[in-house]
Amino acid sequence: MPATRTESGSTPPAASEASLAPLGILCGGGTFPIAVARAASHSGRKVVLVAIRGFADPAVLEGAGFPVEWVHLGTIGAMLAALRRHGCREMVIVGYVFRPRISSLRLDWKAIGMLRWFLRARRGGDGHLLSHIASFFEKEGFILRGAHEVAPEILVAEGTLGRVAMTEAEREDARIGFRLLRAIDDFDVGQAAVVAERHVQAIEAAEGTDAMIARCGEMRASGRVRLPRRSGVLVKIPKPGQDRRIDLPSIGVRTVERAAEAGLAGIAVEAGGVIAAEAEAMVRVADEKGLFIVGLAE
Amino acid sequence: MPATRTESGSTPPAASEASLAPLGILCGGGTFPIAVARAASHSGRKVVLVAIRGFADPAVLEGAGFPVEWVHLGTIGAMLAALRRHGCREMVIVGYVFRPRISSLRLDWKAIGMLRWFLRARRGGDGHLLSHIASFFEKEGFILRGAHEVAPEILVAEGTLGRVAMTEAEREDARIGFRLLRAIDDFDVGQAAVVAERHVQAIEAAEGTDAMIARCGEMRASGRVRLPRRSGVLVKIPKPGQDRRIDLPSIGVRTVERAAEAGLAGIAVEAGGVIAAEAEAMVRVADEKGLFIVGLAE
Repeated sequence: MPATRTESGSTPPAASEASLAPLGILCGGGTFPIAVARAASHSGRKVVLVAIRGFADPAVLEGAGFPVEWVHLGTIGAMLAALRRHGCREMVIVGYVFRPRISSLRLDWKAIGMLRWFLRARRGGDGHLLSHIASFFEKEGFILRGAHEVAPEILVAEGTLGRVAMTEAEREDARIGFRLLRAIDDFDVGQAAVVAERHVQAIEAAEGTDAMIARCGEMRASGRVRLPRRSGVLVKIPKPGQDRRIDLPSIGVRTVERAAEAGLAGIAVEAGGVIAAEAEAMVRVADEKGLFIVGLAE
Repeated sequence: MPATRTESGSTPPAASEASLAPLGILCGGGTFPIAVARAASHSGRKVVLVAIRGFADPAVLEGAGFPVEWVHLGTIGAMLAALRRHGCREMVIVGYVFRPRISSLRLDWKAIGMLRWFLRARRGGDGHLLSHIASFFEKEGFILRGAHEVAPEILVAEGTLGRVAMTEAEREDARIGFRLLRAIDDFDVGQAAVVAERHVQAIEAAEGTDAMIARCGEMRASGRVRLPRRSGVLVKIPKPGQDRRIDLPSIGVRTVERAAEAGLAGIAVEAGGVIAAEAEAMVRVADEKGLFIVGLAE
């Protein structure tokens, strides 16, 4: 979607100007930041990586051909300086940030002035923390974009991604899972669950998706739940009330591998609401293991 | 509450007559069946234990001074015969029954006639299975009572049970947990969660309460979540739509021990909605370990 200049004088600075400047990517953990960088770069955009120490992975970010600026989570002044030094006007925030220890933040003077909201943010979950960071950057004059806006190809679209299709019974399990997750969208918990044969097996909270999937495998191995081989659907959706620019859930190669180990039949995500950064590799693994990956628009 | 004879001719057989006959207790796993038997016996009631092989614990039930009849889960005919042989008119169903393997049921002719509902029941969770069994016994002319009706002293009442009180912040965590569990009461999942510092740490599904509590300890040990020592509230409530006669949730000595190991501060349950079969022993352990146990009427 090309940015268009508007005639109205009351709108914020036109996106077309800002989007000619380099895109600043504030990088947390995982491989998604680099996937977003490659996608944005592929579409002709200059990219600068601002990497958060302790979360962003040097092995992933360094040597990919993009400038990398390393900062601590609390050195807001350094983040702003890095973005401005490279002439960025737009930025995205990508990758996982655990709830940090205050001592690991390395607060600078800019951040210490904001300490109250940081402490408040720390009390909530990751979503809260990130939304406070996001609104802060906007106050400083940056335009915050969603990763899906600068790299729409990373979103799982509607339909089946690989060779394996989902059965009608599995689709019904996915629907139950979607309904369950939507029922708890008020709470700052995980965005994933596992449903098998119409029965909710596991709901993610602070343990994370990988640990929740592993639990499903353990319950089977111990005989606590008895299910046929290759049954159960991992469901994942974004929170309806959530700012999609800062916290879209994601699936990847590892998710598929874990799901296969746990004996699940496949993965169903809300179409257009979940990131798959390494989609090709992920689908290859899913096909090999016989799992489905489906984007559902319901 | 003494049973009173009613003047109306259209009501079912008066409870007063039925309650003079021995109470049949269909016993699943755990120590709750014997606690209910003792409480009912204490109030002057004759008691017969009908114990389900593979679930009920002989070490718990035998030698307590009550007649015990052992049956398989699928030998419905044998259950009915045992209850009738002892002249029971009223019965309760107490104790845990995992979703069974069909082969372990040992279906008799009476049960095979009911196979269809058994298979349907097996697809849902425990709640479904038990509600099918319950409605079947009612159809056979037995009056199904709740354990809390024949032994009301086993329910956690409103207020603090031991010496340790709950802080206002912990009460707020408990409220968040209650709201979360009520949001998912439509789904046949666990009835417990852990909330610490206003953040949902874990939600129980098929893994059971003990495993969920253990997970909270593991997340702390691994550094995945960072919380002060002795923080976090285990919450437990009955499902609003649920038949309280057959599936009230419970806490016990083991629950307190697990919660202490996981570093939690205490346990909050819905007052009048959760069973504590060995309340004295449980409170002693809670006091020793410094945990609160509170019944909340909200």
